[in-house]
Amino acid sequence: MAYIPVQEGLPGIRSLVQYRPETGKPLYDLVQILLRGPSPLSPAERELIAAYVSSRNECGFCMNSHAAAARCLYGDQEQIVDDLLYKNNQTELSEKMQALLAIAGKVQKLGKSVSPQDIETARKAGAQDEDIHDTVLIAATFSLFNRYVDGLASFTPTNESAYEAMGKRMSENGYVFPNQ
Amino acid sequence: MAYIPVQEGLPGIRSLVQYRPETGKPLYDLVQILLRGPSPLSPAERELIAAYVSSRNECGFCMNSHAAAARCLYGDQEQIVDDLLYKNNQTELSEKMQALLAIAGKVQKLGKSVSPQDIETARKAGAQDEDIHDTVLIAATFSLFNRYVDGLASFTPTNESAYEAMGKRMSENGYVFPNQ
Repeated sequence: MAYIPVQEGLPGIRSLVQYRPETGKPLYDLVQILLRGPSPLSPAERELIAAYVSSRNECGFCMNSHAAAARCLYGDQEQIVDDLLYKNNQTELSEKMQALLAIAGKVQKLGKSVSPQDIETARKAGAQDEDIHDTVLIAATFSLFNRYVDGLASFTPTNESAYEAMGKRMSENGYVFPNQ
Repeated sequence: MAYIPVQEGLPGIRSLVQYRPETGKPLYDLVQILLRGPSPLSPAERELIAAYVSSRNECGFCMNSHAAAARCLYGDQEQIVDDLLYKNNQTELSEKMQALLAIAGKVQKLGKSVSPQDIETARKAGAQDEDIHDTVLIAATFSLFNRYVDGLASFTPTNESAYEAMGKRMSENGYVFPNQ
């Protein structure tokens, strides 16, 4: 049971943005532009960063839903997602993505733990300004969502099929604020 | 120097939202409704929670600017702000605010560290659903801002007068997205 009276059965963030649509709307606007808008990072890569940060913040709802979206978007290469999340195996990822994930991992801990060397490593692997910006903001944004979802103990489904359906919807439709 | 080419001299979050206004706009919309919109918590109390979380995330820019805004909004009671941030002295705060700050401190660490007992304590001290919701979302939101600002090493002024001016502007005007 969530700590506040949200609609029963609605999972995770969806129950919270329905409870408080005034704040829910800008949260959806942010995540839509950040994960689906113009970026040198593909939507698959951005969903992977979101799932990775959520995993490190121990947020089951966000990790499972964004991992499911990433699997859909990676298609034939979907194994990349579980390799990273469950085996910390990054061998199928580009050097650039490996360096960006290292930055995302630092941001997840504490903003100031990102060092000039982390940025230099990413640039040497081909990261541009926008890659670095978007990686930091995705990691910061999921540090918000993870805390919002778990801090209010919102409903976290436990059946895999629920996340498969969510991932499919997220990969196809993005983050459209639900009509109230 | 920030890690990406933002406008020199613009401090903290302002340089970042100018660099990427597409994500900057929903971030400003969020913080405006969350810190100035309808809530059982006063703007002063909400700025105090923001400064408290930023302090725990070691984000000097966000801590100093929101502490300055909180001082303006508390007026005669401005001592409350420095008592909390520099002495962890909460004696002038209501029992409800003390319980909500305890929740904010848990959220700052990890969403799932908030326990049913933390919520129960806050409710017994008079917290309503909206107090709890807004506290969790403010703590989560500043966990984003702190990471965004420091993760990209954006410019953090060191002179107190810069923060005084910011705090005054924030307390009077709120968070209006700057025209580009």
